This record gives sequence, C-alpha cells and structure tokens, in this order.
Amino acid sequence: MKIEIVARSCIEPALFEYMDPGNDAFGMETLVEFAGRACYQSFHKPNEATRSNRAYLANILAQGHESVLEHASVSFYVQGVSRNMLLELERHRHISFSVISTRFVDATKSRVVVPPPLREVVGSDTVPLDSDVIEEYLMTVQALQAQGKTRKQAREAARWLLPGNLETKFVVTGNLRAWRDFLRKRYSVHADAEIAEFACRVLELLEKEAPNVFQDFPDTPFD
Amino acid sequence: MKIEIVARSCIEPALFEYMDPGNDAFGMETLVEFAGRACYQSFHKPNEATRSNRAYLANILAQGHESVLEHASVSFYVQGVSRNMLLELERHRHISFSVISTRFVDATKSRVVVPPPLREVVGSDTVPLDSDVIEEYLMTVQALQAQGKTRKQAREAARWLLPGNLETKFVVTGNLRAWRDFLRKRYSVHADAEIAEFACRVLELLEKEAPNVFQDFPDTPFD
Amino acid sequence: MKIEIVARSCIEPALFEYMDPGNDAFGMETLVEFAGRACYQSFHKPNEATRSNRAYLANILAQGHESVLEHASVSFYVQGVSRNMLLELERHRHISFSVISTRFVDATKSRVVVPPPLREVVGSDTVPLDSDVIEEYLMTVQALQAQGKTRKQAREAARWLLPGNLETKFVVTGNLRAWRDFLRKRYSVHADAEIAEFACRVLELLEKEAPNVFQDFPDTPFD
Amino acid sequence: MKIEIVARSCIEPALFEYMDPGNDAFGMETLVEFAGRACYQSFHKPNEATRSNRAYLANILAQGHESVLEHASVSFYVQGVSRNMLLELERHRHISFSVISTRFVDATKSRVVVPPPLREVVGSDTVPLDSDVIEEYLMTVQALQAQGKTRKQAREAARWLLPGNLETKFVVTGNLRAWRDFLRKRYSVHADAEIAEFACRVLELLEKEAPNVFQDFPDTPFD
Repeated sequence: MKIEIVARSCIEPALFEYMDPGNDAFGMETLVEFAGRACYQSFHKPNEATRSNRAYLANILAQGHESVLEHASVSFYVQGVSRNMLLELERHRHISFSVISTRFVDATKSRVVVPPPLREVVGSDTVPLDSDVIEEYLMTVQALQAQGKTRKQAREAARWLLPGNLETKFVVTGNLRAWRDFLRKRYSVHADAEIAEFACRVLELLEKEAPNVFQDFPDTPFD
Repeated sequence: MKIEIVARSCIEPALFEYMDPGNDAFGMETLVEFAGRACYQSFHKPNEATRSNRAYLANILAQGHESVLEHASVSFYVQGVSRNMLLELERHRHISFSVISTRFVDATKSRVVVPPPLREVVGSDTVPLDSDVIEEYLMTVQALQAQGKTRKQAREAARWLLPGNLETKFVVTGNLRAWRDFLRKRYSVHADAEIAEFACRVLELLEKEAPNVFQDFPDTPFD
Repeated sequence: MKIEIVARSCIEPALFEYMDPGNDAFGMETLVEFAGRACYQSFHKPNEATRSNRAYLANILAQGHESVLEHASVSFYVQGVSRNMLLELERHRHISFSVISTRFVDATKSRVVVPPPLREVVGSDTVPLDSDVIEEYLMTVQALQAQGKTRKQAREAARWLLPGNLETKFVVTGNLRAWRDFLRKRYSVHADAEIAEFACRVLELLEKEAPNVFQDFPDTPFD
Repeated sequence: MKIEIVARSCIEPALFEYMDPGNDAFGMETLVEFAGRACYQSFHKPNEATRSNRAYLANILAQGHESVLEHASVSFYVQGVSRNMLLELERHRHISFSVISTRFVDATKSRVVVPPPLREVVGSDTVPLDSDVIEEYLMTVQALQAQGKTRKQAREAARWLLPGNLETKFVVTGNLRAWRDFLRKRYSVHADAEIAEFACRVLELLEKEAPNVFQDFPDTPFD
C-alpha cells in the first residue's frame, strides 16, 4: 500500500488582509479558521481563549460546526490496494475518485493484494496473478477479439477471471470534513482490515498536514 | 440478473386539493408536475399547451429543469449482478445502496456472474464458484479462526480468493433525476456490457412507472 | 406555517416474497428493515431479539447504520414560512426543493412572516406587505418594463424592496436519513426560532409516518 | 461586489515523479490531467495529439469526463452581494459555504445591495439601511432582550425588518466540476441579473487560474 499526497489546498495572500494567520497553523488550518471567523466577522480575534488556531479549531470541533472544514482538500495517489477495498471506499460519496480502468489497461501485469492477516504467512503484501489465470485471461481476450469485439470489450469481459482483490490505483480527493467522516467510520477496530490500514495511513498523513484539525482523534483506532 | 421494484413514491390526497392530477399521469409523474407548478403557482394550468402531464414534462425536460424530478424515487431489489459492476454503479453518488456483506454472509454458496458476451459459450448467466476455490476459502476461514480471528475477520480475509465477478445483491434507490443521470451515462453502447444490460432493464421498468418522465429517451442505447 | 405531506415511499408486493413485514410497522419502516436485512440476507429474522420492526430499527439506530434510511422518502408542501428560514434550510444539501419563484410570481399578494417571539405582540403569524412597499414595487416594475426590461427582469429587480421574511412556498423532499440529520441540528433550543418550529412540525408528521425510525428522538427539542 | 481568491489546490512534488507537467499548464490543470492519466496509466503521454495539457483537457471536456475536475478546488471570499442572491446560489449543493450570521452579527451597519438594472438610477451598488428600519430593528432587539430573550434570539427575530437584499459575506469553495456546473446555469442571459454578474466575475477569475479547464466557455453569457 503506497499513499502519497499529490495536492492540497493552499492559501492566497488576499486572506492575510483580513486575518493575521498566527504562528501555530498550516495553510489549510488557517483557511478553516478564516471560514469560521467569516461567519462572525471576528477576524480580529476578540476572544482571548480561542486566539490560537489550535484553540479555535478545538472549539469548532467540540461544537460540531464541521461545515467550515469543507473549504480545505487533500488529494492522494494510492497504489497497492484492492478493488474489494475500493468497493467499500466508494460508498463515501463526498470523496472524489479517478480510478485505473480495467477495461482499458492490460490486467496481466497487475498484482493481487494479500489481506493484512495473511501477509505474514504469504510473505508479501501482494502476489502476482496466477499464471493459469493470466493464460485464460489472454485466451479469452483473443477469442473475443476474433469474434469482432473491440479490445476494450474483450478486456472488460475477460476481467471476470480476475480476483476481487486485484490491485487498483487511484487519485482520491476529499475535503477535511469528508476525510474526518471517513476516518470516524473506518479508523476502527470494527472495519475491514485493509480499509482500516488505509484509514491509519490517511490519518497519519493528514495529521502532518493539519494537526489542529485532527487534534480530537485518538492514537489508536476507534473501538 | 433479476431486478424488481420494491418501493416507489406515492402521492397523498392533500396534493389534489391544490391540483387536479389529470388523467394521463401516474402518481410519480403527478408529483413531478406538482413540484414544477409550485414554482409558478400554476396549479390551475393556465397554459393550454402544457395542460397534459406529458406536455408539461416534455417542456420541463427540454428546459433542463431536472430538479423537480428529485421528489420521486424508485427502489429496486437487484440480484445476479457482479461486484465488478457494483464498483461502477456506486460511482453514481446520488443513488443509495444497501449491499449484501461479504464479511458476514458465507460466500461459498454465491455464484459468479458470466459477462454478457460469454454467456452463450458458457451456457449460463452465472456459474457456481470453482470447488477448489471453495475449499481454499473454507480452509482459510478455519485457519484464521484457529488463530483467534473472529468469523467476520476470517471471512473478510478469505474473500481475497473469490473472483471480482462474484454475485452481489442489493437494494438500490434513486430519485428520477439520479436515475436519468445514471441512464444517460450507462444506457450506452460505450458502457461496460453488464452495466449496460442493467441500465436497459432499469429503463424498461422506469418507463412503465413514469413514461412521461422518460419520453425523451431513445428505444436503443445512446451512441 | 402550513405543512402537508404530499408524497411518501410505498412498498410493492414483490418485497413480501422475501420478507414477512410483521405487524408493527408502516410501509416505510418495512422498507428500511428490508434494506437492512438484505445486507445480511436475514429476511427470515433468525434473531429473536430483533424480530419486531421496532427492535430491529432500534438496533440499526444504535449502531449508526443510517444508510438504510436513505431508501424511504417523504415530500411536504410548505407554506407560510419565510425566505430567511429557507436560506438556512437549503444548507441541508441532501434535501430537494422546488420553490416559488419571486422572479415569475407577482409578489404584491405575498405576506410577510412574523418571527415566533413577535407573534403575540403583532397578533398574527403573518402580515400583509406594507402598502408603501407594494406601491414602490409596482412603480419599479413599471419603470423597468418601460425601459425595455422583461416582466421577469423587472420583478427580480423590484424584489430588492421586499423584506427578507417574505413568505415563500415550496415542495421539499428528503429521505429519512436526511430528515433525521436535519432534525438533529434544527430540532434544538439553539436553532433559530422559526426553523425550530418548522423542525417540530416536521418531526410531528414524520413520527406518525414512521414512529420506529424516530423512536430515539426526545419529546422536546435537543439542548 | 468584491470577489477574491483566498485558496486553491496546489500540487505536490510527488506528482512529478509520475508525470512531467509540461509547460502549458498551471498547477490545478496539471492535477486534472494527472487524474485523467491515472485512469489509463498514460503518464508517459503516448498519444502525440493530446500531449499538451490544453489538448488533453479539450478531449476530456469534449467527452464529458468531468469527474477528473473534482480534484481541484478554488475558494473565494465574497462581499457585497445580497442574501436574495445567496438563496439561489445555495441551491448548487456541491459548493461549500461559510456565511456571515445575521443572528450573531449586528445588522445595523450592513448595506443593502442594489440590483444591477437599478444601479445607474440609484447611483451606487449598495445603499445604507434606511434609518427608520435601523431604529425599529434596535428597538425590537432591546424590547426582546428586556423580555428575557438572549441577544442572539433578539437579533434573529428583529431580522424580519430587514430587506431580502441585505448584503451578505461568505467564503465559498467549489471544485472545478462544481464551478463549471454552476457557470453553465448562471453565466446566462436568462439568469437573475445579480447572480449572472457574480457568475461573470467567478469565470473571469477561474479563467486566470485554469484557462485550459474553461477553454470551451464562450466570451459572453450563454443564451
């Protein structure tokens, strides 16, 4: 499983004309505070107790005013996770996806994701496709093309031979509210092991980007 | 592939106190017209040309005022489609799903969906799981439970042995705007063969429920 | 404030072939239970403790599995509420609206909504528009039309003379998950008085439609 | 009307390890191309005809593959527009808002937005609140507080005296797909004059941020 940040929200100088960003916040955290203060026109930070970004966001989170978190987004490029996991992840409809197409891309070089509890015994996180499966896949593609199907149509049909844990790759973007909602459900001991591992990795990266936004998250998955 | 309507929007008598439903519309079509007329307070149908529901909706559709279609919904119970198809279907985020859980339900009795172009040669729409796969699945479940994993954890890991075209079952609900949007993209010669077949079947059923809402759809898939 | 149910989800006989609806549930509650049981293929109700719809839904709500509530929807026709209230209501983006157009409909007969805390002193829930305002509105419409603007353009500009509490009317539809989310935020002593009153009325009606779905809601607004 | 960009999506170096960004694209455009190429694993740009970002995005737009546009977002801080306009803008539910609260902020210093067709005759884009209205507003707030209402409750009720064109201020964020959808509907000669002006200004700013993403938009509003 490889997860890399490929984009995030950055603030523009225009914002500073309204609000001094202070010195305890990254850009996305400043953006969230700015949005919150716009509602009350409190850019001058009249309340001593919430003058720091951390204290301000702690209050926002405690009050459940999560809509201000929608202004900041983070995009990841994800590799080495399974299509079975993606089927669960896609249910989080506020998140956006661009996923490798099994209809266009030749699947024979794809790997298969080993579920976390089996990785030790298998000795790896992923394994290659079974050679018999590859052979049957290629024969099916060939046979369908011989019958006049396009390569895309042939590949999408031959896909039925491939395992549900076939590796997928995708760009995924969510705003901080959407990521928090995802994490509340999947950063959990009750979640599927692979998506729980994904959630841990996402949280780890987001905590570096916006520690104040995730200050209320526990160190270990929710029970 | 089996698709049945299990619920739909029904109108209540209160509506008739505002608008005479006419005699060319089913309940959901009347609801859509009612919503459109509420915007202009034209319940008395002052415009002769759009007095029938069919003409009124033709005008709505031509103008692209699709938001009024959101008031009416249809729910299906779907069986005999693949998890690979579901992975595409879930991207339609305005649709709602309740899907059979492969973590809770024993998968060994599930069938595998044959892609449409291979059904003739295979001689069936679905085939049983390969007996070797079932055996390995059951052994994996047993081994993991022996190591202290719960049955749910064992099944979710053993799932990696199952094909991506494993049959799934689900309840799916969409409002008429969401279904139209889905159909515009998947009732298409360019769509994956299985989801295109699903789209044909959905359209067939919806046209019986609300013919006026789908009056602008062609008889054959979009090209 | 007048709120009437104009549509709701109704179940179809096909559902009964899978599940006996029991005798303690309305149609929408049965639909929600059906969706929940589809996930576990437990239509035969193997668990004695959750055999009644009320107990089954109590468990669903306690676990936070609210996605099954998305299959059932209720539509209201609402009159006698203010555009100021609508501005707050629209933020609930999972709800669907068809709203009277102030660009098309002559506003001079509209009334103005009195906020709840002022109703006693004003002696009414709504008051007519001030006659000076009507006169200025009509003069503006006339002047703009004389300058070549269409009636629609003239009315949309003249609207600037009208109060924010102008009465609006709309059809509004939400699924039961969306309505519950709305109610958790607005059925509250901290909400604006008019939207809190609206929330009380909505809850009152929904509790009659689907008492088991709202069994965990308190008798008085959240604090 | 004052609209300033306060945040946008920025790309991270990790992206460049997969794809050479070329030299005809800003960061957000590169992000969109990256997401598109991830679907086909065509980071090496095998197709000569779509090697430039402009040509690649032209093809994406022509095919209607707008989901890749969801990865890039732009946030604006908006001042000097009316609450009446906001009521229309909020219907674009994929956009996110943080709006000045009329329950918390003293409204007496707010201005009133003059509709575009009346600006010449009024001689200004905004006018102060009528002094009689201010006086009545303050008296109502005072009276309600004297009766034991909180300041927030008093202000929210007194708001009924204020015009619908009261100025509002807000932070608004949308991804490029959401902004394009908004613009297709409101950058139009048929739209309300104020929201059409807002759409023009938004398009003007977005075209500077991501010209390739808006290359198919006309120079004058849609007819």
